[in-house]
Formats: sequence, structure tokens, C-alpha cells
Amino acid sequence: MCAAKSCDFSFSVDHVLPNGLGRSGTITTPHGPISTPAFVVVGTKATVKTVTPEQMDQAGAQAVLANAFHLYLQPGPDIVDEAGGLGRFMNWPGPSFTDSGGFQVMSLGVGFKKVLAMDVTGMQNDDVIAEGKQRDAQVDEDGVTFKSPLDGSTHRFTAEVSMGVQHQLGADIMFAFDELTTLMNTRGYQEDSVRRTQRWAQRCVDEHFRLTDARSGHPYQALFGVVQGAQYEDLRREACRGLRQTRAQVPGHEHEGFDGYGIGGAIEKQHLGDIVGWCAEELPDDKPRHLLGISEPDDLFAACAAGADTFDCVNPSRTARNGAIYTARGRYNVTTAANRRAFVALEEGCDCYTCTHYTRAYLHHMFKAHEFLGKTLATIHNERFTIRLVDSIRHAVRGGEFDALRTEFLGSFYGGATPGRA
Amino acid sequence: MCAAKSCDFSFSVDHVLPNGLGRSGTITTPHGPISTPAFVVVGTKATVKTVTPEQMDQAGAQAVLANAFHLYLQPGPDIVDEAGGLGRFMNWPGPSFTDSGGFQVMSLGVGFKKVLAMDVTGMQNDDVIAEGKQRDAQVDEDGVTFKSPLDGSTHRFTAEVSMGVQHQLGADIMFAFDELTTLMNTRGYQEDSVRRTQRWAQRCVDEHFRLTDARSGHPYQALFGVVQGAQYEDLRREACRGLRQTRAQVPGHEHEGFDGYGIGGAIEKQHLGDIVGWCAEELPDDKPRHLLGISEPDDLFAACAAGADTFDCVNPSRTARNGAIYTARGRYNVTTAANRRAFVALEEGCDCYTCTHYTRAYLHHMFKAHEFLGKTLATIHNERFTIRLVDSIRHAVRGGEFDALRTEFLGSFYGGATPGRA
Repeated sequence: MCAAKSCDFSFSVDHVLPNGLGRSGTITTPHGPISTPAFVVVGTKATVKTVTPEQMDQAGAQAVLANAFHLYLQPGPDIVDEAGGLGRFMNWPGPSFTDSGGFQVMSLGVGFKKVLAMDVTGMQNDDVIAEGKQRDAQVDEDGVTFKSPLDGSTHRFTAEVSMGVQHQLGADIMFAFDELTTLMNTRGYQEDSVRRTQRWAQRCVDEHFRLTDARSGHPYQALFGVVQGAQYEDLRREACRGLRQTRAQVPGHEHEGFDGYGIGGAIEKQHLGDIVGWCAEELPDDKPRHLLGISEPDDLFAACAAGADTFDCVNPSRTARNGAIYTARGRYNVTTAANRRAFVALEEGCDCYTCTHYTRAYLHHMFKAHEFLGKTLATIHNERFTIRLVDSIRHAVRGGEFDALRTEFLGSFYGGATPGRA
Repeated sequence: MCAAKSCDFSFSVDHVLPNGLGRSGTITTPHGPISTPAFVVVGTKATVKTVTPEQMDQAGAQAVLANAFHLYLQPGPDIVDEAGGLGRFMNWPGPSFTDSGGFQVMSLGVGFKKVLAMDVTGMQNDDVIAEGKQRDAQVDEDGVTFKSPLDGSTHRFTAEVSMGVQHQLGADIMFAFDELTTLMNTRGYQEDSVRRTQRWAQRCVDEHFRLTDARSGHPYQALFGVVQGAQYEDLRREACRGLRQTRAQVPGHEHEGFDGYGIGGAIEKQHLGDIVGWCAEELPDDKPRHLLGISEPDDLFAACAAGADTFDCVNPSRTARNGAIYTARGRYNVTTAANRRAFVALEEGCDCYTCTHYTRAYLHHMFKAHEFLGKTLATIHNERFTIRLVDSIRHAVRGGEFDALRTEFLGSFYGGATPGRA
């Protein structure tokens, strides 16, 4: 018998690093394969900001990740569903991801101090709101109530709502609804939160398989459990074990659990490798692991070494829109005066559309003149830079040259003379 | 003997309308041919706003027009020159135009009432400045002094400056520096202005050939004289005759004058055909005529019937950036609620990239979510709509069906039920 799930979604590993954690492989989805490690381009509101899907395809993007929270508020998941799902709606024929909405919903509660407001009695440390800010999200056992940042209307996200929204969005890979904590929360609160996230995870799996049956005409959507636990090794390991053992309590799906795992939550840069490594040790080797939100090249190396298979990050495109350009020798800003007459590519030797057709001088002009095309061209380069970096990590894992690449790349990126800054 | 000019730039007519004015033909430039009538896409600051050159090429654009004034201020014509000229700088391999800068410079003087400030004594009617506005441009016999809208610095444009700037920009077709008047100027001022523009035209031709000799390594840049004269038939005809007879006073170029003509100035919609027709009757049949700035489909038909060969217009892209979509059945706004669930193309049957890959519902979402890509996709459609319209006019001229196309198209565009407005 071939369950819908096993036909449409699978993961295989082809190479493993000598440390036993980092690896390369292939995730198979109903919309095509993803060779891992892979960088997943962020398309928050069903668009990779400022670029077309073809431009992202040409830059080598294998998959896009959109945000359930944003699409829930606008245009509404029913519209995306009616359009034929996220990929059809945004003209992206390849694999797609949606996050659970948890991160965005809970970010509303934090004010500037990035601390959630919650109703747990006596936990003063967990109730810090930045001065002059209002709490716009309240967590309780069942879910989160929040105010829309668009119009102030009140909404509620729960495990079931997140699953319903993500099934309507129709991405190939979804994430379970989780509670986001921060490094400022107390240990006690982290413990409560990890256990609450586990209870939500069970509800997500159940609702997911109910919806999978109810929407049987659709391609199978894989569901990833999300590992929280902040900086605590025991909590991270506990979270992994809980998610790993989760099985659906839905008739006909009693043996089915998560299809993969997301590693989320607040992660300080210096602990990233450790945290991913703890999770990789606990999670099954035959399921993919996605690191939710990552920023700089050294993080990518650390995450790959520790066993993460896919990553998403708004950093390449967000910085691009401000004129910050990634190169193998570091980052520079194309808006600085040094680039006014620089009739050379953004990055020497880069194969992206921008570098092969335009000069730094032209992009400098576009940014100074506040022309949209500057953002488009810079985004294409930065996404291509990041995709190519992760592609080269994948090739290095397969070729047994991961450590050599890491040493060489990071030495150049962080130690090199930054171009265009003179 | 083959002068640089005749080798690089030429114009031929292949069909003429029964009225003897409208026609189709080919302008040959150093960067390729332009089949006329042709719509020239506006790329003000060396970018067609929000789109790539390839996207404009795919939309059928034959040529782009940039603004000398904007590029003079930013990034500076020396930078465009050093980049290898406008086309190289902006990655547009085809034919290009630059305007003279006159329109923009003088627009600075007008405040909101679009009336120039000038130093002609006793002409109260020509000195009207909108309340609360400052005059930022002063016209005198030699040229125009103006303040930069970017930083308030003082600059001066003259015939020679405009030619110098445009030679540095390096477009295939340039325009002589002219004085822009408005319909609110007195008859007396219009007479003075037409004669001043003629004196500037002579200086432009002279400077143009001096620069052509001085920059002999560059492809020949054609120079078009600009016909002013507002709504007065006698002044328009006088202006045409003056420009037609202009010959360079530069050794070796004594027989050379303008390569074509621009029809400029304030033109009320209902007089557009008449004014273009007066000019077409006076100007030589073997030189191309460009109508500077045009807006709606009926204007295109009127201009083509009266003998204009090329047109430029910011309207398709400017309206697109606000969500206004052109169709054969009229214009509608994709941001209206009616389009929230419209899972159909922007225009049924349209062959543009946007219509073949996205729905109105998606564009509605992009605009509501303030996503750049909405502007890009709408611009592609509106430019393609306008280019295709002028292409169909050209084919109709060649096939003897101009009147039939005009009746059918305008009946549908202005009389049809506007889609998406319900």
C-alpha cells in the first residue's frame, strides 16, 4: 500500500559528514525535489520582494517560504486556496513552505524588548513590555489572541487555525503551531512553554490528518514539528523526543507523525551549532530538519555541520533593498560614494543576472535616484550569492571537502578586504 | 562619399495614408531599426521604472527615451558617458532617445499653474505663479537658470549645455533645446518664444556638429528640432519652416540640418490632430516626426493619422504603478474590491507576461500589500498594451485598414463596459 504521504513526500540522505550530523540529501515534494542542504528563499506575502519567480529560478532558488500569518491577514487563505494554492497564486511552480504563523503572531506581543506578554500568574520576568508599547498578543493554553497590525481587529490563532490556514495555503511543507519564547524568559516559563508547544503539536498532527482526509483531492502537504527550548540542552532534547514520538489520533493515521522538523526559537549566534546538533542527535536521521530563520554565512556553515538540511532567511533580500551587497570578501554598501564611478560588477566573477548585466555605478545611481530597479537587481545578487554558497556547501559535503570550504570561505568573507568600502 | 550621419541614421517611408500625412516606415539608428509608428517607452532616469530591459524587450518595446535633465542632475552625464553611454549604462541594447531637458527645466518655473516665470518686462499674464509656490527657473535670451529640485543648487541650461549633456548621454536620437510655453501665455509671448527657440535651434545644430566632430569615435547621434507654437497655426507653421531651413554653420557640415523633428509644447487634446497635421504639412516627408508626450489611445490614433511617427509617454507606467490597468474595453483599477477574487488575467487574451502568468486577484493582493512586484507586473501589462496598440496601428496603415481599426478600437475602448469596475 502506498499512502498519499509516502508517494508525495520523502527524504533521502546521500552523504554524511565525518561528525555524523551534517549531511546532504534530497527532499521530494509534490512540486519537485530539493537538493539539501538548500537555502529556501523567503516570499513572505506570496512574493519574493521586488523580483519575479523566473528571476528567482534563474538565481537557482529551489523553494520559497511564505508566511501563514501575513497571508491569513491579507489576502486571506481562502483566496489563495481558490487560486489553486500558494504556488499557483504566486506563479512559483516549485516546492513551497509556509511557516505556522506562530512567530509573527507572538512577535506582536513583545514591543521592542522582544518579550512576550502572557497570562501566567506571578511571572514578572515574562511580562516585560517595552516602554510606550502595547501588548498586542496574549498567549493562553489554547492559543494566541492578537490584534491585526493592519486594522486593529482581534484574531485568534490556535493549532487548529494554523493547520486550517496552512492547508488552504497549500504549500508542500508546513510547520506545527508553536509558542515562541525569547532568551529573556525564565527557565520556568521555558519549561511550561516547551510542554505547551508539545500539546499544540499533538493537536496540529491530529488536525493535519483530519484535513488531509477532508481535502483528499489535494497533493499531500508535509507537516514539520517545531523544536523550541531556547538555549537549554535538556529542554531542546525533551522537545525533540516529544515531537518524534507524536502520532496522530485520527482513524487510519495512527502510525503517522511529523514528516520533518523545524528548529525554531531564539538562538544566540554562538550557540547555533550546539542547539542544531542537540536536535540532530535526537531527531530521526531519515527526516529533514529545517532551521527557521538564519542570517549570516557563518551561521549557514555551523547549521550545515550540525545537521540542518534547509534554511530560510529574509536577510539577503532585506539587506539588498537597503543597498547592502554580499560578496565572498564581505559585505559592502553600493550607495557609498566609492561606487559612484565603479564600472565593475557588484561581485567580480559572480554569474548572477545583475553582475553579468550591470555595474556598481548603475546600482549606485538606482539607489540614489530611489528607483525600484535597484532593489530588484540587488536582491537578485544577494539571493544568488546565498543560494550559491549553500550549493557549494552541498557539493563540499558530497565531495568530502566541507571543512576546507568552511575555512576558506569564512577566512575570505570575514577576513578579506571589503570591496567598495574604500 | 558616405557621411557618418547617412551611414548611421536614416528614415524610409513604406506606406502613406490616403490623407497624405499618416504613414508607416523605418527609422534606422546605430543601435537598430525602429518600425514606425512606434511607441517609445519612457525610462526617465535610465530605467523604465520597476522593470528590467529584458521585460520591456519581451513586451515589444523598440526604443526607450530618457530625460537629459534628470540624468544631468543624477548621476551626471559624465558618468553615463564613462559607462559607454545610456544604452550600455542601463543595459538596453536597442535604440534610445534623450529629450533636451527643456521641458523639465522649465516645469520648475511654473508652480502648480504650469505657467513659466520669465523676465520679459510688462508681461503680467506670463508671470503667474501658483500661490505658495516659488519660481525655480528663469528664462532669458541665452538659456534658463534653475534650482535643482534635489539639493537647491543653481544650474544653467543653454543650447550648448543641452547638446553637451546629450552627447555625453549618447542616445541615438536627441532633441534641440527649446522653450516650453503653455496655453496660458499671451500670444505676444508665444511669438517671442517661438523665435527664441529658433535661435536656440541654430545654436544646437552648430554645437551638435562641433561635438560630432570632436567625439568622432562615437556612433552618430541624430538631432531633432523641436516645434513649438502652442495652439497657433501660423506660429506652428513658422516654427516648422524655421527648423526645416536651419543649416549648421560648422566647416564641413554646411549642408546639414536636423535629422528629424519633435512636436512639443502644450497641446489641448481636441487640437492634437490639427497641430500635428500642420507640422506634417510643413516638415519634409523624408524625416521622422516624434510627438513629445502623449497620453491616451485616442491621442495615438489622432497623432498617427496626422503624420507622427514616434511617441513617448509616461502614462502607461505611471498609471500602472497606481494599479490602473489598460484593456481594449477601457481602463480599470485592479485595487477595487471587485478584483479581490478575480482569478482571471488583467486583460482577457493579452499575450503579456503578466496576463499569461498572474491573475487580477494576485495583483490586487500585491497592491493591497504594498508589494513592489504589483507595480512591475502592472507596468509590463500597460506598456505591452500600448506597444501592441501602436503596432496594430502600424499594421493597419500598411494593410489599408487604419480607419476601420480606429473606429473599432475607440468604440470598444471608450464605449465598452469597463471590466473590473463592477
